[in-house]
Amino acid sequence: MTKEFLFEQIQQKQSFLCVGLDTDINKIPVHLLELEDPIFEFNKQIVDATKDLAVAYKPNIAFYEAMGAKGWESLEKTIDYIPKEIFTIADAKRGDIGNTSALYARAFFENMDFDSVTVAPYMGSDSVKPFLQFKDKWVILLGVTSNEGGKDFQFLEADGKPLYQHVMATSKAWGSDQNMMYVVGATRPEYLTDIRKTIPDHFLLVPGVGAQGGDLQEVCKYGMNSQCGLLINSTRGIIYASNGVDFAEKAREEALKLQQEMSLLVQSI
Amino acid sequence: MTKEFLFEQIQQKQSFLCVGLDTDINKIPVHLLELEDPIFEFNKQIVDATKDLAVAYKPNIAFYEAMGAKGWESLEKTIDYIPKEIFTIADAKRGDIGNTSALYARAFFENMDFDSVTVAPYMGSDSVKPFLQFKDKWVILLGVTSNEGGKDFQFLEADGKPLYQHVMATSKAWGSDQNMMYVVGATRPEYLTDIRKTIPDHFLLVPGVGAQGGDLQEVCKYGMNSQCGLLINSTRGIIYASNGVDFAEKAREEALKLQQEMSLLVQSI
Repeated sequence: MTKEFLFEQIQQKQSFLCVGLDTDINKIPVHLLELEDPIFEFNKQIVDATKDLAVAYKPNIAFYEAMGAKGWESLEKTIDYIPKEIFTIADAKRGDIGNTSALYARAFFENMDFDSVTVAPYMGSDSVKPFLQFKDKWVILLGVTSNEGGKDFQFLEADGKPLYQHVMATSKAWGSDQNMMYVVGATRPEYLTDIRKTIPDHFLLVPGVGAQGGDLQEVCKYGMNSQCGLLINSTRGIIYASNGVDFAEKAREEALKLQQEMSLLVQSI
Repeated sequence: MTKEFLFEQIQQKQSFLCVGLDTDINKIPVHLLELEDPIFEFNKQIVDATKDLAVAYKPNIAFYEAMGAKGWESLEKTIDYIPKEIFTIADAKRGDIGNTSALYARAFFENMDFDSVTVAPYMGSDSVKPFLQFKDKWVILLGVTSNEGGKDFQFLEADGKPLYQHVMATSKAWGSDQNMMYVVGATRPEYLTDIRKTIPDHFLLVPGVGAQGGDLQEVCKYGMNSQCGLLINSTRGIIYASNGVDFAEKAREEALKLQQEMSLLVQSI
């Protein structure tokens, strides 16, 4: 998917919502467990209920890997089911030496038709570049993560700036704002001003709104740019809004609240 | 597996060789392609031919993921096939927020019976600790990687020492030398002296000997400790020594060369 197409979708839907599909067999409604593929059935109903409100879906791959080969099949069916005009993110946080990263890229971009993969930066350029060889596919590189442990290394100062700023400043030359985005946790909106000095035009994938305590208005105030530049992810607050037979309906209600809040913000661009 | 048991195996086999199982459908002998599961059949024959010479096997998970659900099945069969006294490494380079890392841990430690997983450090403590909750299972954290891009961030200096030293110094408190190892590329043996000051007792997983140009004698000179403390990985030089019907035999010959070189080094401990 191109950046222009993504921005068009954001304008059409008045939304920059990404719904996380961290589908856990232990958390989904029990009535689904009788079906042949409960994980896919759950995802299907969530997608049906939210696809006019979301511009992106983000399955976290760990949830599928934890189910073995069967989980992998549920993931493949899910990605095939999501409408093509919706941006898809394999939240995999991969990264390996060049020939190996190329295989991960093949797994997510060819075998499955994901639009993007999250990648960890520690191994540097040749671990990231193989993902950038695919037309209209994206790398979403970890920048500032929303978890507590994010502070352990990402804020170490080298040459007067924190590691995450080095990651952004160095890596932006590996691709462009047409094929790279960055993860910036919503729990750290105070860093967005500086981040926008380094990468004014890139899209940011922002997890941590909702369950993790991030604030949508704050994130937009400091992080939004002229092409929106933000994908705000919400997972638990939407997909686990109810664990009854009404789970999809309740998921839609929660997604709608966020979309309505986003609508005003999109209009202000 | 305990550290003591691993060291016993090293002494018995006079070897600290780890064989990488980066099994690529495009590189294995063509006569295997007629079989139902060529990837597993290749691994099985490599394991049969080298299991008395190797103390560890390391499948790189990307090679299996690139095959989809079927690849995942080949991986499961492979890990079941490897004798229990041999240390197994899921070279996955995973790492995510806590509840998600716990799922990766479940995938590799419970669904499959791997002894260890490689983990990327960028997301910090809560991305690593869930892997340390499993008895006799190991985290192998990326320290200094052997690829060219390893220089991009791992050598950034913060407070007078490079990032990889911060990673080692901080992370060693999350576990102990009984459940953590570190990846240190053989292409950078000059750093081993300093690394041993920070983590004198931990095992190091050392890729990059052979195809990538690392030197076994140099690595041992600076990296070996009183319990060996090294697992030296070789992949392409062994498993792709021949792509004919004699591939397993040739793999054994290459593994034997390394084991014989290692034998003298183990005797010197």
